[in-house]
Amino acid sequence: MFFNGISDYKLSGERFAVEYRIYGNESEAYAKAKDICIEQTVEFPEELVPEGFIRDFIVGKIEYFKPYDDNSFKVKISFCIESAAGELTQLLNVIFGNISIKPEIKVENIELPQSILSLFKGPRFGREGIRKLLKIEKRPILFTALKPMGISAKDMAELAYKFALGGIDIIKDDHGISNQPFSPFEERVKLCTEAVRAANIKTGNNAIYVPNITAPYEEVMGRAEFSKKIGAGGLLISPGLSGYDIMRQIACDDNIRLPIFSHPAFQGTYVMGREGISHGVLFGQIARLAGADGTIYPNFGGRFSFTREECEDISRRTEEPMGDIKSIFPCPAGGMSLSSIPESLKVYGNDVIFLVGSGLFKNGPDIIESSRYFRDIIDKHYV
Amino acid sequence: MFFNGISDYKLSGERFAVEYRIYGNESEAYAKAKDICIEQTVEFPEELVPEGFIRDFIVGKIEYFKPYDDNSFKVKISFCIESAAGELTQLLNVIFGNISIKPEIKVENIELPQSILSLFKGPRFGREGIRKLLKIEKRPILFTALKPMGISAKDMAELAYKFALGGIDIIKDDHGISNQPFSPFEERVKLCTEAVRAANIKTGNNAIYVPNITAPYEEVMGRAEFSKKIGAGGLLISPGLSGYDIMRQIACDDNIRLPIFSHPAFQGTYVMGREGISHGVLFGQIARLAGADGTIYPNFGGRFSFTREECEDISRRTEEPMGDIKSIFPCPAGGMSLSSIPESLKVYGNDVIFLVGSGLFKNGPDIIESSRYFRDIIDKHYV
Repeated sequence: MFFNGISDYKLSGERFAVEYRIYGNESEAYAKAKDICIEQTVEFPEELVPEGFIRDFIVGKIEYFKPYDDNSFKVKISFCIESAAGELTQLLNVIFGNISIKPEIKVENIELPQSILSLFKGPRFGREGIRKLLKIEKRPILFTALKPMGISAKDMAELAYKFALGGIDIIKDDHGISNQPFSPFEERVKLCTEAVRAANIKTGNNAIYVPNITAPYEEVMGRAEFSKKIGAGGLLISPGLSGYDIMRQIACDDNIRLPIFSHPAFQGTYVMGREGISHGVLFGQIARLAGADGTIYPNFGGRFSFTREECEDISRRTEEPMGDIKSIFPCPAGGMSLSSIPESLKVYGNDVIFLVGSGLFKNGPDIIESSRYFRDIIDKHYV
Repeated sequence: MFFNGISDYKLSGERFAVEYRIYGNESEAYAKAKDICIEQTVEFPEELVPEGFIRDFIVGKIEYFKPYDDNSFKVKISFCIESAAGELTQLLNVIFGNISIKPEIKVENIELPQSILSLFKGPRFGREGIRKLLKIEKRPILFTALKPMGISAKDMAELAYKFALGGIDIIKDDHGISNQPFSPFEERVKLCTEAVRAANIKTGNNAIYVPNITAPYEEVMGRAEFSKKIGAGGLLISPGLSGYDIMRQIACDDNIRLPIFSHPAFQGTYVMGREGISHGVLFGQIARLAGADGTIYPNFGGRFSFTREECEDISRRTEEPMGDIKSIFPCPAGGMSLSSIPESLKVYGNDVIFLVGSGLFKNGPDIIESSRYFRDIIDKHYV
């Protein structure tokens, strides 16, 4: 009625699907499910959606609707792959754009067909690539952070040197260290890269320094390129601050070729409560799709609130089949203490990168000694 | 103890502040407030934070702590401006990075000193600039969206023509229209820009077409430039999908010079529940700081769940004093019906852009007639 005839575009027929958990009684939840089908696609009054391929295929389709528990339902909704336009930004928009603004809907799983997966290269390194880079065949990998904010680039490099000397494999900037005047980005990257290199010569290890490149839009790529040029060993980025797509872009960039670690800053709200995105989807599926080689998140039992089950969910998503997209490392962090490592090993097995920051400092005044102790615990407990 | 002497950086002494609402009883809330001071800055065991300027000034400071209601507290915490590194990404990180992962903390206000505000240009146009561009002195502005997803660029242009003919001032792509094969970006921008231009010749109005440029990282800027070249009148972007900083960057770009409308897709989770960021801060303060000239959000009484008070909060933040940063337009949307406009005018006054999409289609089969009716309602009710 609004159009003199809708052009009948020929869709591929392929669809991707999202599983939502929807709260409410059956009729409320079903109404929300129907609403998602409309809201995430045509955003049009249902009765006025044009007949033909738009009504039949563009509008989302409920694939199943079943009870989850007494007060919520599991609903799988499929969308035509064309709606995502081959773009990560638009794919995320179809998955959770407008309905992020509606209460009590949570994304619990994303199912992408090969035709979408093949558009995304995912991580360049993945688990295997990182193990090769660090020359660590089997054992869990040791990760720490340079802090506190306020110390100079020189002090950071000194710390990095000690960590590397003590046997830490990956030494990153704390995620809040960007380009502050007390520790400017370029000076810091130079000094820390040199420090870790010097330690490697002493130890014979292959430790890497990973600068934080979360930065203004026009500077992110330059910081990645600078880090590469100087010889840093990886990159840290917070997609909640920078957007996911820059991570994907850097992972694809053949001039950069460095492993990427994603940090959860500014994203926590998504996983809490009844709205948002589940832990496994956000820190597992989406991080991986967007090119992270390692996904950092707060471990259970630390100073954050994730449960063991939520962490297991993330871990599972880092290695579940996902087309040609590589499996990535879970990097449990967030106030992990050294004493919790044996318990965590039971959850993660060997394919894990333990990020212990404050826990190392708390262990005692001798950083090299504490780093060695961290390594000893790993060596003693992994199977 | 970890450092052979911290370099004593000379801070400016200037601070910015964030007001948080923290849930819990007094001792719980106070402990959370102390934790924010650490977590958002040094992220270091409190007892080990180095003496001197790091402990005294880098660590956040509780400025006040007072009851909010029976179960929550209002806490103002200040941070040294240097911690934000002059970057929007890092400023947002200090405001809410890691503590986004902690339960029951909500950002309720941001107070930035001139030294930080002056780093950000904010919107290029603001309310005054948009009124000048559209040559509309006083009345509320009419805004609508091209949809549903699935129609061709030609059909979109036909719709745009009718909207403009009927007197709509701003005609944007629906936020889910990106570069789908049924309506490719470049073809659509050309046809819709031409259509609105043709209608303007007939009406003598100054309607603008606003394409959606939310896109992969490496394409956003190109889509903005293409839109400018073709003669589109503004840009739509969803910072929840693209990251905030690209919006800021486009607003600053002297080659683009188009008003920007920010869309809330993928951001709703932040404003719901006890975690996150308040409506006024997210859609008001942050959108404005990041360069939006108009901030789109679901109006009260529509198909979303925002209350009248939450919308009033957003509206207030679009015009409260903010250094030299211009006031911007609230753009209430989200299933607004035409009949709700008189009530909404009481809340927003004349300085508002009403975004009515589905409501126009629902009004009847004649788009031009419905657009005129929308305009009539405005003309009849604004003061």
